[in-house]
Amino acid sequence: MALSSLSRFLVSRNFGRSADVKVSLWLGSKCGISTSGPDLATDARSTSFKRFADYTIFKGKAAMALSPILPTFREVNSQSSKLCKRGCVMMTFWPAIGTKKYDWNRKQVFALSPTEAGNLISLGPEESCEFFHDPSKNSSLEGQVNKSLKLSPTGNDQGYFLNLMVTNKIKGTNERFSVPVTKAEFAVIRTILTYILPHILGWSQSAISQLPQTASNLHKQGFGTRPDPALEWEM
Amino acid sequence: MALSSLSRFLVSRNFGRSADVKVSLWLGSKCGISTSGPDLATDARSTSFKRFADYTIFKGKAAMALSPILPTFREVNSQSSKLCKRGCVMMTFWPAIGTKKYDWNRKQVFALSPTEAGNLISLGPEESCEFFHDPSKNSSLEGQVNKSLKLSPTGNDQGYFLNLMVTNKIKGTNERFSVPVTKAEFAVIRTILTYILPHILGWSQSAISQLPQTASNLHKQGFGTRPDPALEWEM
Amino acid sequence: MALSSLSRFLVSRNFGRSADVKVSLWLGSKCGISTSGPDLATDARSTSFKRFADYTIFKGKAAMALSPILPTFREVNSQSSKLCKRGCVMMTFWPAIGTKKYDWNRKQVFALSPTEAGNLISLGPEESCEFFHDPSKNSSLEGQVNKSLKLSPTGNDQGYFLNLMVTNKIKGTNERFSVPVTKAEFAVIRTILTYILPHILGWSQSAISQLPQTASNLHKQGFGTRPDPALEWEM
Amino acid sequence: MALSSLSRFLVSRNFGRSADVKVSLWLGSKCGISTSGPDLATDARSTSFKRFADYTIFKGKAAMALSPILPTFREVNSQSSKLCKRGCVMMTFWPAIGTKKYDWNRKQVFALSPTEAGNLISLGPEESCEFFHDPSKNSSLEGQVNKSLKLSPTGNDQGYFLNLMVTNKIKGTNERFSVPVTKAEFAVIRTILTYILPHILGWSQSAISQLPQTASNLHKQGFGTRPDPALEWEM
Repeated sequence: MALSSLSRFLVSRNFGRSADVKVSLWLGSKCGISTSGPDLATDARSTSFKRFADYTIFKGKAAMALSPILPTFREVNSQSSKLCKRGCVMMTFWPAIGTKKYDWNRKQVFALSPTEAGNLISLGPEESCEFFHDPSKNSSLEGQVNKSLKLSPTGNDQGYFLNLMVTNKIKGTNERFSVPVTKAEFAVIRTILTYILPHILGWSQSAISQLPQTASNLHKQGFGTRPDPALEWEM
Repeated sequence: MALSSLSRFLVSRNFGRSADVKVSLWLGSKCGISTSGPDLATDARSTSFKRFADYTIFKGKAAMALSPILPTFREVNSQSSKLCKRGCVMMTFWPAIGTKKYDWNRKQVFALSPTEAGNLISLGPEESCEFFHDPSKNSSLEGQVNKSLKLSPTGNDQGYFLNLMVTNKIKGTNERFSVPVTKAEFAVIRTILTYILPHILGWSQSAISQLPQTASNLHKQGFGTRPDPALEWEM
Repeated sequence: MALSSLSRFLVSRNFGRSADVKVSLWLGSKCGISTSGPDLATDARSTSFKRFADYTIFKGKAAMALSPILPTFREVNSQSSKLCKRGCVMMTFWPAIGTKKYDWNRKQVFALSPTEAGNLISLGPEESCEFFHDPSKNSSLEGQVNKSLKLSPTGNDQGYFLNLMVTNKIKGTNERFSVPVTKAEFAVIRTILTYILPHILGWSQSAISQLPQTASNLHKQGFGTRPDPALEWEM
Repeated sequence: MALSSLSRFLVSRNFGRSADVKVSLWLGSKCGISTSGPDLATDARSTSFKRFADYTIFKGKAAMALSPILPTFREVNSQSSKLCKRGCVMMTFWPAIGTKKYDWNRKQVFALSPTEAGNLISLGPEESCEFFHDPSKNSSLEGQVNKSLKLSPTGNDQGYFLNLMVTNKIKGTNERFSVPVTKAEFAVIRTILTYILPHILGWSQSAISQLPQTASNLHKQGFGTRPDPALEWEM
C-alpha cells in the first residue's frame, strides 16, 4: 500500500508544478512510475524539469547568445548507458532593428562542437579562427546552406570581432551578423566554455554515475593509517 | 496513509532544524506538500536552507568581502524554467575604525555583473579597469547616487588597489574605500570568480536540470562497442 | 509495513530499467536492501547505473580516445572510507584500416596517472614529454611488455604528435600509433584533464561527503552579522 | 505508522554500513531522527559518511600529502547557516627511513589558508614564497612552536623545492623536511588547489543551497521567448 501510494504520488507530480530540480530528477525513474499505472512519459527527457540559461551580448548591429546543449546517453543494458550524441554550445544571432531592439524572429544559429569550443578557449590575443558548417551534410541538401563563423582580433588585445555568415542557395539569401566582443566578454565566454566542455562531452555525468565505488569486501589490516606508494595504476 | 504520513513528515520539517541541505532541497517540492495540507511556503526560496559564504580581506583602512548571489529562474510552463534575473558577485566594503576593527553599520555594496567579473578574471598585471554603477538607473532617482569601482596595479606584479567611491547627491555624502589586494589574494578572487561565473549565469543549474537524458528507445545494433566518428552536431 | 514495501520497491528496481542516475545512487545503500531480503548486489559497484563517455580524435593513421576511470574507496569503518585505488585517464588507440575506418579489435591502452595528466596540463607549446609503463610491473612478467607514450610539438604552436609504442616480447610484436593533435584538440584535452583530476584523486568525492558540516550547538551572540577576522586556521 | 517505520529505518541505519554517500547525507537530517527516538548523533558531522582523499608525493628524504579540510557552517536560524570556520588544505610531511619507507608516526602538518593556496596557484616559475605559522597563536603558548613553509624554484622552470621547518621550543626540537616537486606534480597541486578553493571558502555549498530559486509567482507576458537586455543587476 505504501508502495502504490508513493507511486501515485509520483505520477500525480506530473500534473503539478515544482521548483525543485532534485525531485524532478528522482521522478525521472521509469521504474517507479510504471509499476503503478501507465507511463505518461514517452521519453526520459520529457519528465525532467529543465532550466534554460544563456550568456547574451547586446551590440549595435546584432545580439549574440551562447547556451549549452547537453549530450544524450543511450542505454547499453540495464546497468549502463553510453553517450550517443555529443552536446554542443549553441550560438544564436539576431539582427538589430533599432536601439536595443532586435528582430527575434530572424535568428541564425551555429552549434559549436567541443573541439571548436577548445579552439576559442586557446585562441591567442592576436589569432584568428574560422569554422565552416553545413547543416545538411550527408543529406540530399548538402551544400545548399553554408555557414561560416569567424573570429578576428580587434587589435591591441581588446577582444574579437565575431562574424557569422549564412548563405542559403535555396532561398537565395545571404545573411551577415557582426558582434564585437570585448576582452572582458571574451573572458566570460572562455570561462563558461571551459566549464561546459566536460558536460557536453558527458564526462561530468560519467563522473557522477561512477560515484559510489567502495570496495567494502576488501578490508586489509592497517589500511587507513597511512598513504601507500603503490596505489597508482600502471597500464 | 503512508503518503499522508510522509507529507506530514515533510510539513513538520518546516518547524524543525536541519543541517542537511539535501533534505531542504527535497522539501522544496510544492507538490509533495500541497497534497496534504496548506502550503506554508509563499515562495520556493523560503523553503530552502541557505548557506552564506564570503571571501573577506581585512586591511588597514577598510575590509572588503565578496559573496555570490545566484540567479532567479521563472517557470515557463510545468516542464521548464528560464533564467529571469542574473546573479552577481556582491562586493561589500566597511571602513576601519581602529586596529582590526571595522564599522559594520557603514557598509557600501557594489554588485559585479558577469561581464565585470570577466574583466577582473582577464585583467593583466599592469592593467587598470573602472566600472560605474547607478543603483537608481531607469527610475526617477537616476543620477542621484553614483558608484565607481576602480582597480589599479600596485606595481611590480604585486597586486592591485581596489577603490570604491560612492557619491550620494541626496544625502550630500561622498564615501571612499581603499583596499590593497595582494597578488595571492587576487589569485583567490580570480579563482572564485571563475568558479562562480557559470553559477551566476545559470549554466550550472541548466547543466544539472538536463542531466537525465537517455534515449532509451533508440537501441541500435552494435552500439556501445566503439566510438563513432559521426557523433558530432553540425548546425 | 511501509518499510518493507519500500524495501521491496527498492529490490524490484534491480530488475527494471532506469534512466535516472540519482535513483541508482540511492539504491546503492546496502542497508535498505538487506533488511528485507537477500542482497542481490555482490559489490557496491554493481548496483550503480554507469554512464560512459570519452573524447575521441579520428585521424588518418589512428584514432585516440580519452575516458575517465574514477577511484575506488574502501571502508575504514561504518563512518568513513578512504581512497584505496586512484583513478586514471585511460587513453585508447586503434589503427586505421581505411578512410574513417578503424580496427576496433586491435586497440592498445595507456593509463595516464594523475601526475602524468599534470604533465600534459602544464606542457609548454614547444616542450616534449615521454612516459614509460610496464603493465606487469612487480609481477613475474615484468619487462615483457613495454609501453611508451611520447608527445612532441608539431611546431609553430600548432599542437603535438601523440605517439604510442607497445613492445610485447612474449608475442614478439611491436605496435606504433601516431595521432597528430591540433592546438584546439589539445585545449579540449587540457580542459578535461583539469576537470577530471580532482575526481580521479577522489577530492571531489571527499568534498561532497564532508558537505553537511553545521556546528549547530555552537551558537554565539552576534554571530551572523559580520565577517570575523579570526576565522582562519593556523596549524 | 509509515512515519515511525521510516524513522526507525533511519535510526537503524546508524548501525549498518553503507557505501552510499547520498543516503548518508539524507540521514544527516536531525529532524527525521529526533521525532522518533533519541538522537544518537551528538553533532551533525558524526552522522555523515566521510570519504578521505589526498595527493601524496613520495620522494627520497620525505613524503608530502595534500588533503582538503572543508569549512564548518553554523546555523543563524532555522532557514540559514553561515560559515563559521574556513576550511584549509592540510599538508602533511613524513621523514623517509629507507627506500620507499617513511616514518608514519613522525608527521608534521601545515594548514594552508585560502590566501596561501592562492599564493601557490599564482606563483611564477622563478618566484619563491614563504609562510610562517604559530599553531598556538593567541594562546599562552604563543611563540613556542614556529612553522615555516618555503617554496623556491629548482631552476629552469622544472618545479620547486618544498621545505617545511618546525621549531618546538618546549621540546627543544627542530625538524626539517625537504620535498622536490616536479613541474608536473606542481601542475597537479595547482589544479586541485584551484578546484578546492571554492569548497574551503564555502562558496560551493552556498551555490548548492541557493539552487531552487524559481520565481513562480512572477509570470509576465511574453517571457521565455527572447533574451532581455535589462536582466542584469546594477547595485
